[in-house]
Amino acid sequence: MDYDVIVIGSGPGGYVAAIRASQLGLKTAIVEKESLGGICLNWGCIPTKALLKSAQVFEYLNHSADYGIKINGAGEVDFAAVVKRSRNVADGMSKGVQFLMKKNKIDVLVGFGKLKSKGVVEVKAADGTAKTYNGKHIILATGGRSRELPNLKQDGKKVIGYRQAMVLPQQPKSMIVVGSGAIGIEFAYFYNSIGTKVTVVEYLDNIVPLEDEDVSKSLARILKKQGINIMTGSNVESVDTSGELCKVSVKTATGTETLEAEIVLSAVGIATNLEGIGLEENGVKTDRGKVLVDDFYRTNVEGVYAIGDIVKGQALAHVASAEGIICVEKIAGQNPHPLDYNNIPGCTYCSPEVASVGYTEKAAKEAGYEIKVGKFPFSASGKASAAGAKDGFVKVIFDAKYGEFLGAHMLGYNVTEMIAEVVTARKLEATGHEIIKSVHPHPTMSEAVMEAAAEAYGECIHL
Amino acid sequence: MDYDVIVIGSGPGGYVAAIRASQLGLKTAIVEKESLGGICLNWGCIPTKALLKSAQVFEYLNHSADYGIKINGAGEVDFAAVVKRSRNVADGMSKGVQFLMKKNKIDVLVGFGKLKSKGVVEVKAADGTAKTYNGKHIILATGGRSRELPNLKQDGKKVIGYRQAMVLPQQPKSMIVVGSGAIGIEFAYFYNSIGTKVTVVEYLDNIVPLEDEDVSKSLARILKKQGINIMTGSNVESVDTSGELCKVSVKTATGTETLEAEIVLSAVGIATNLEGIGLEENGVKTDRGKVLVDDFYRTNVEGVYAIGDIVKGQALAHVASAEGIICVEKIAGQNPHPLDYNNIPGCTYCSPEVASVGYTEKAAKEAGYEIKVGKFPFSASGKASAAGAKDGFVKVIFDAKYGEFLGAHMLGYNVTEMIAEVVTARKLEATGHEIIKSVHPHPTMSEAVMEAAAEAYGECIHL
Repeated sequence: MDYDVIVIGSGPGGYVAAIRASQLGLKTAIVEKESLGGICLNWGCIPTKALLKSAQVFEYLNHSADYGIKINGAGEVDFAAVVKRSRNVADGMSKGVQFLMKKNKIDVLVGFGKLKSKGVVEVKAADGTAKTYNGKHIILATGGRSRELPNLKQDGKKVIGYRQAMVLPQQPKSMIVVGSGAIGIEFAYFYNSIGTKVTVVEYLDNIVPLEDEDVSKSLARILKKQGINIMTGSNVESVDTSGELCKVSVKTATGTETLEAEIVLSAVGIATNLEGIGLEENGVKTDRGKVLVDDFYRTNVEGVYAIGDIVKGQALAHVASAEGIICVEKIAGQNPHPLDYNNIPGCTYCSPEVASVGYTEKAAKEAGYEIKVGKFPFSASGKASAAGAKDGFVKVIFDAKYGEFLGAHMLGYNVTEMIAEVVTARKLEATGHEIIKSVHPHPTMSEAVMEAAAEAYGECIHL
Repeated sequence: MDYDVIVIGSGPGGYVAAIRASQLGLKTAIVEKESLGGICLNWGCIPTKALLKSAQVFEYLNHSADYGIKINGAGEVDFAAVVKRSRNVADGMSKGVQFLMKKNKIDVLVGFGKLKSKGVVEVKAADGTAKTYNGKHIILATGGRSRELPNLKQDGKKVIGYRQAMVLPQQPKSMIVVGSGAIGIEFAYFYNSIGTKVTVVEYLDNIVPLEDEDVSKSLARILKKQGINIMTGSNVESVDTSGELCKVSVKTATGTETLEAEIVLSAVGIATNLEGIGLEENGVKTDRGKVLVDDFYRTNVEGVYAIGDIVKGQALAHVASAEGIICVEKIAGQNPHPLDYNNIPGCTYCSPEVASVGYTEKAAKEAGYEIKVGKFPFSASGKASAAGAKDGFVKVIFDAKYGEFLGAHMLGYNVTEMIAEVVTARKLEATGHEIIKSVHPHPTMSEAVMEAAAEAYGECIHL
């Protein structure tokens, strides 16, 4: 079969690229060896949010008396049911992608995809049989997997990655989470809130180390209060899985400690899936585990493109989707703008949530900006009081000279829904006063964005 | 005492104006006869959101099995505790305003304020003693109260307004809510969800009649499914409160029905508080219950201003605050822009929530626009699936010719936090493609804004 576009990998980069290609009139196929939707839909963003929702409901139940609601005794987590719900949600979304492929007349080629030669993709099915397909444009979107550290080898049973962490056969009594990025913190939060004893070990000095220090420090304080043991500036030296419990040797600033837990979750980042997809054979250039591409995701080999986790830039679903759309629009002869990697929001869905975009305070200073910083705590928000969600704040950073909106950092209930305003505002080159003069509805948490901007300019009303 | 600014009324118009005046170096006093914060903080926005939060927690509890959480038997609403929590939240906010007045060195004058003569305000205390104060600029911000219809007189016991509705001595078994604006629908939703049998009677053809018809119709369908009896195109002719239950005679398209309920809640809009504040004596012009003002809230009498519910424009807390700030900035010699009343968001906090801004589809057509409409249902959103909140949609309206973002209409979980993005985008004169190309974080409900915009331009990915 001959295609205009063949996409290898059906995660949020690949399937979105395929749909946009089909919309633009290109004959398109997509190769997937497992489930449509890739890690994001099946083993990432979506099923974890389902687990976290169950945790939220459980927390409401445990605090129902605070809201004037009585229950008989304590609530109980049916772990198998929580996991089953999460799988059902993921399966439903994957079927949704199947429907979208059909609706957009995209051929789904089941098997392991490989760049065979110029314009040719080989798809090897599970039974070993291989077929080849011709594609004028071949987009590599093979994504990533849990990164393994030499001293933290995953056996998939006691030392696990995110994938096993969302389908454990039973709820562990204790867990050590190594790494405190979004994935580590979401699982730490989830397991702690349903009653597992959780320790987080982070190599750097702060948890969620990509976030603004204010957010990292406040979140650490809140998670500790929730019962999570947090060890920063600490390094896992070895794991002994020979006994019933894992013995984890952790080097801290003051010495070496040995921790014990049923399960060790390794959440130390992702590794890219570059093996066996024909990069070397076809001379596609890579650098430190990433495929090298230009602003429109073209590799050095004509007709071969790469998007998503396997190229530079944040390894996030929405980045992969945006890259896929830009890549395909360029192929179709449109004139898309290159993606602004400095205006990509990042979210962590623990409770309170974390959301941010743009420069942290430290990064803005390091970049040489003279800055104005505004901060508004949710403790001063009427909606937060009414919702019983006073933890956290919105912090905004403006360039003092021209008023450019450099960054926003949020910690609080629902802030993952609030960050889009800042992304759009920055896209439109908003100044602080344009935010202040946009009438935010009362009472909402979103007023905090307006108030934080006002605080930066000495005009905050509610502080 | 001599002041630069005296504000009469301490609602979200008045107290915000006072704080901004003080920030701008004006010596300021505020007059309040009851509790600081006015209706919004004490009897409106804030305490109702607290009640609604209790309802939400109760609903999670009733559906906890859906999320894999088990409880022993059914949950129970402790109505007195729910009301008490709501009062505590309101009291806390009112104390917050007290703190803000002190911090900003604003004198609080307790009593009923009246424009006595040019530059003079009389404040009459509860004991009848009166004092006068001189103010160069006097801002009237006396707000509104529940409107009474002749055939729906409120006795405060069986036929009540919003104020009594949030502090009923016990939960009524049945309630008839007359009027289906934000206030009516929020109480209908609240009481129905905690187990009261609720009927909504609306004179017009649709509930939430200011909203886009799509929203009105979908919300009606959902509320009916939740158990609320909705009668549109219906009119209350009389109420007989002589028996144990109120007998309400309702004229419908097909005849007259008599309904019975313990409580009748009149939510047919607000009346302005213009009585006894010295308008006639000082020649301040009014028109149909509103004080006439210019773009900067100046009345026809020099040195007298009016803001909030008592002037034209939406009777909403955030409008009053914005007006107060503009009014005071102009007094202080700044050059604020007049408020754009077409970019004011409106929210109704039932579940699913309603949020909207700008033109409805009908209004846009009536205004002569050729339009592009995009709609994205939450049933196609991954986050909505994970959160168990698939009801509703985002609908956006663009001008077909120049791409102007004319309006957005949202129904769904958390949409009151999502509308700020559209307000800011419209403030910044965003086009559809600027929204589409703003990278929204995945997975969030906010992606629906981007997808709806994309749908308007034939570029929606997930439909």
